[in-house]
Amino acid sequence: MAGGARDVAGAVADLRTPALLVDQTIFAANLATMADALPAARLRPHVKAHKCTELARRQHDAGHHRFTCATLREVEGMAAAGLDADLLLANEVLDAGRLTPLAERGAHITVAVDSPETVAAAAAAHVEAVLIDVNVGLPRCGCEPGDAAALAELARARGLVVRGVMGYEGHAVGVEDRRERARQVRESMELLAVAHREVGGEVISAGGTGSYDLNELATEIQAGSYALMDTAYARLGLPFGNALTVLATVISVNRGGWAVADCGLKALGMDHGNPSLADGGAVWFCSDEHVTFSPPDGQPLPKVGDRIRVIPAHVDPTVAYHEALHVVDPATDRVVEVWPVDLRGW
Amino acid sequence: MAGGARDVAGAVADLRTPALLVDQTIFAANLATMADALPAARLRPHVKAHKCTELARRQHDAGHHRFTCATLREVEGMAAAGLDADLLLANEVLDAGRLTPLAERGAHITVAVDSPETVAAAAAAHVEAVLIDVNVGLPRCGCEPGDAAALAELARARGLVVRGVMGYEGHAVGVEDRRERARQVRESMELLAVAHREVGGEVISAGGTGSYDLNELATEIQAGSYALMDTAYARLGLPFGNALTVLATVISVNRGGWAVADCGLKALGMDHGNPSLADGGAVWFCSDEHVTFSPPDGQPLPKVGDRIRVIPAHVDPTVAYHEALHVVDPATDRVVEVWPVDLRGW
Repeated sequence: MAGGARDVAGAVADLRTPALLVDQTIFAANLATMADALPAARLRPHVKAHKCTELARRQHDAGHHRFTCATLREVEGMAAAGLDADLLLANEVLDAGRLTPLAERGAHITVAVDSPETVAAAAAAHVEAVLIDVNVGLPRCGCEPGDAAALAELARARGLVVRGVMGYEGHAVGVEDRRERARQVRESMELLAVAHREVGGEVISAGGTGSYDLNELATEIQAGSYALMDTAYARLGLPFGNALTVLATVISVNRGGWAVADCGLKALGMDHGNPSLADGGAVWFCSDEHVTFSPPDGQPLPKVGDRIRVIPAHVDPTVAYHEALHVVDPATDRVVEVWPVDLRGW
Repeated sequence: MAGGARDVAGAVADLRTPALLVDQTIFAANLATMADALPAARLRPHVKAHKCTELARRQHDAGHHRFTCATLREVEGMAAAGLDADLLLANEVLDAGRLTPLAERGAHITVAVDSPETVAAAAAAHVEAVLIDVNVGLPRCGCEPGDAAALAELARARGLVVRGVMGYEGHAVGVEDRRERARQVRESMELLAVAHREVGGEVISAGGTGSYDLNELATEIQAGSYALMDTAYARLGLPFGNALTVLATVISVNRGGWAVADCGLKALGMDHGNPSLADGGAVWFCSDEHVTFSPPDGQPLPKVGDRIRVIPAHVDPTVAYHEALHVVDPATDRVVEVWPVDLRGW
């Protein structure tokens, strides 16, 4: 087993900053809520959202033994951690040869394919199985639904097991209005159903945190963000809480009405915009190593040395900047475990 | 010496993607142009832009022996690499005790202070010297100019050498119109001059790549981006070229008119927006591990397996996602050296 949680019993106050914190109670509730809604194989947790085999182990403990990966490094790390009973690389790769030694050591790996080139790469690497990746409306990967049958035929001719289809409705999962989101998910899944009728197989893999309870076609949902959450997904009113914050130290206070903490662009995914402050107030802007902010109206400025907690706008690229997740018991505000973010890079 | 360049002689085509590439010729020209404009101690290169001691060594070879850091980890890494003749931590820190062992091993370290608390932290850590950090218009760190004298007095009373002042005109360095940029730089430096007259000392540290030839007050300029550059700074028409690209592989092509390469949000700093394509065309959007793009008008779609090069919008948070810089000889398109990005984290 690679990685492994480190047992620690330190005060949050003693952590160097910036540091990722995971609220143990909210995290456990998120996992329980999802396992209740989508038990066992109904969920294939996506590890790209947390890049952490120890966190994946908690998802495994909650009953989900099949996982989704976005990169070869994620597959390699999950295999090294022994979490390889059924790994789906839900992405197109040409250097699939990196999977061969993992399969030889007993990992069960399925990869997404959407072109003759990616089928050829999977076949050359002796990958066990594939899903035909179908474009269901997001302009990204996936073949056209009408091309899925020919691609499946090609894969089978090359000796690959075609387990079914995959189609990510990524354009729909973040739509704030639930009815409109449901409508777009349905529309996407109609396309995937067409492809599935042609391709066959027992797997229809799709969905994300935003569509986990709306996608009625998929046999398995590829949700990842639900475990830690972020402010973008929080807007959807889902039954998952923000478990992830970035702990930062106030390093400068200006009587002009602002303060600065040591958590900036290199500690936060910024594609969804500025982070939020857990205790309220306004984020003015982020620099490489700074967030400039003001407290809630009527409240005094913080003091130099105070700690604040910042909620990222997008969990995935935030975690990818950090070396570890610090699991915190909110009752005692102590760090109870440290989980390495061991699936970073490519 | 920690880190160190690895000698390699591989084809760029053999690199795993995404991968950071540094064009050796453009990089060398950037360093030469800057060393010509601001020789020796007139430039204090900021390592936050590249987080790489091997790159810093090339800046040292170009005559710059004093460096600027933004984090304690950067100071520790530069000291471990022996590049510690005069390190400025141009940021406020409270856990300055991490600097004590470095100083005991002979590193010469100066830190920025802007409050009684940061002065106390520096004094308690037996830091050698400080600069009084002055707010010159960017709402971030720095005391008000009128408070600088009292802070300097406090620092001297605590046994610290006050080498002078620092004031970063970060709100001005990115202004596209050169005359307006110059005006704002002047305005900021008038504030810093007031503080310097009160504080004394031989150092006035300020500036960045956008003001390297406009800032007439600073005795040393803290530029960093000039070495590798990005599309944000490219808009200013400076005499520095884009040396940095992200190499990516086309993994999917859709006859609807787009292609997808394996370089996404986790390989690119996104706070300045989407990256650009070195060979033209339009970036549609980035996902965690994907960039969706279309070729220039009238050109055919790429093929699956083709390589593309993407120019980041912001160099600093881009490099911070990667493990290495691959230095490429553009004449042969071969990787001539691999430089670890060894100053990441905190």
